[in-house]
Amino acid sequence: MPQTRPERSPFVALPLPRAFTLIEPGPVTLVVTHDGRRDNVMVITWTMVMDFAPTFAITTGPWNHSWAALCDRRDCVIALPTVEMIDTVIGIGTCSGARTDKFQRFGLGRARASQVAPPLLTDCLANVECRVVEVIERHGIVVLEGLAAWIDPDRAERRMLHAVGDGSFIADGDRIDRAQAMRSKLPPGL
Amino acid sequence: MPQTRPERSPFVALPLPRAFTLIEPGPVTLVVTHDGRRDNVMVITWTMVMDFAPTFAITTGPWNHSWAALCDRRDCVIALPTVEMIDTVIGIGTCSGARTDKFQRFGLGRARASQVAPPLLTDCLANVECRVVEVIERHGIVVLEGLAAWIDPDRAERRMLHAVGDGSFIADGDRIDRAQAMRSKLPPGL
Repeated sequence: MPQTRPERSPFVALPLPRAFTLIEPGPVTLVVTHDGRRDNVMVITWTMVMDFAPTFAITTGPWNHSWAALCDRRDCVIALPTVEMIDTVIGIGTCSGARTDKFQRFGLGRARASQVAPPLLTDCLANVECRVVEVIERHGIVVLEGLAAWIDPDRAERRMLHAVGDGSFIADGDRIDRAQAMRSKLPPGL
Repeated sequence: MPQTRPERSPFVALPLPRAFTLIEPGPVTLVVTHDGRRDNVMVITWTMVMDFAPTFAITTGPWNHSWAALCDRRDCVIALPTVEMIDTVIGIGTCSGARTDKFQRFGLGRARASQVAPPLLTDCLANVECRVVEVIERHGIVVLEGLAAWIDPDRAERRMLHAVGDGSFIADGDRIDRAQAMRSKLPPGL
């Protein structure tokens, strides 16, 4: 496997009951797969939290080169890029892993995951290792269970991106704290 | 039906091929239902675009009072609140329609929808009328088809909210245009 950057992980463990908080805000994600020979990465903006366990859904389909790896190998990493990575994200999203080694092309750093074959993306703010629980083929929904989560505690830029779908993106803005008012609805372990 | 505010709609039609762009960024949504007697509204942050048609998924379950109306009446409105509505959103999300007329309690304005029984929320930036295509009960996933979409063209505050899940919320920040670079991936009709 060509290593474009040394395996130096900036991450510390994020307690698993907090992992859903990475996905719930609806950011652009990078989904990393390994097909038995090569790593690949795709952009997925169609994601959904399904429970706090955590369980996630993503929607994709056979037109994505990563689909076969997801269905066959049954694992992936959901990585969370931040705003300064926007042009890398768009590059990843507009070429195919069928013809391109995206890790080499975009100079992506990777580090070994703890429980799945695909690597963590060291350029990202956070990564969630997932196993595929179920593929609901008629809808293109892949149901994922988070197994481990990692976050870079020292990274300065922490604003994530939200795809609008028309070619524009929204960066995270102000954060508003309503933990007190929300107390009755917050899951345990947060 | 008690009318807390007069039915004066601020909305113009949003072309249906653009409706998915309201949901793709992952904002907090208000899902409006009608059970045959009363309107109700719940907060749903677990949403996903499934295709450009548009098709959407939301995850919820029988613990929500709106579940029965969704399953039985097979329609709803997805309304998009903006940042200044945060405390109304939290109020709606922390009480139950089983015991509360939320429209009365929170003084919500409503206007008649064009194709579904539940009303549009006139306080929101936009609304999408939806029919329930399928309920995937074992996952709590409700698959929705958008039938019509409405947007307030004159509203000053257009920043939507993103729930983190820990009691904090992120407001929309800067918008970044990458339409040129994304051209090959944009759906027709946008």
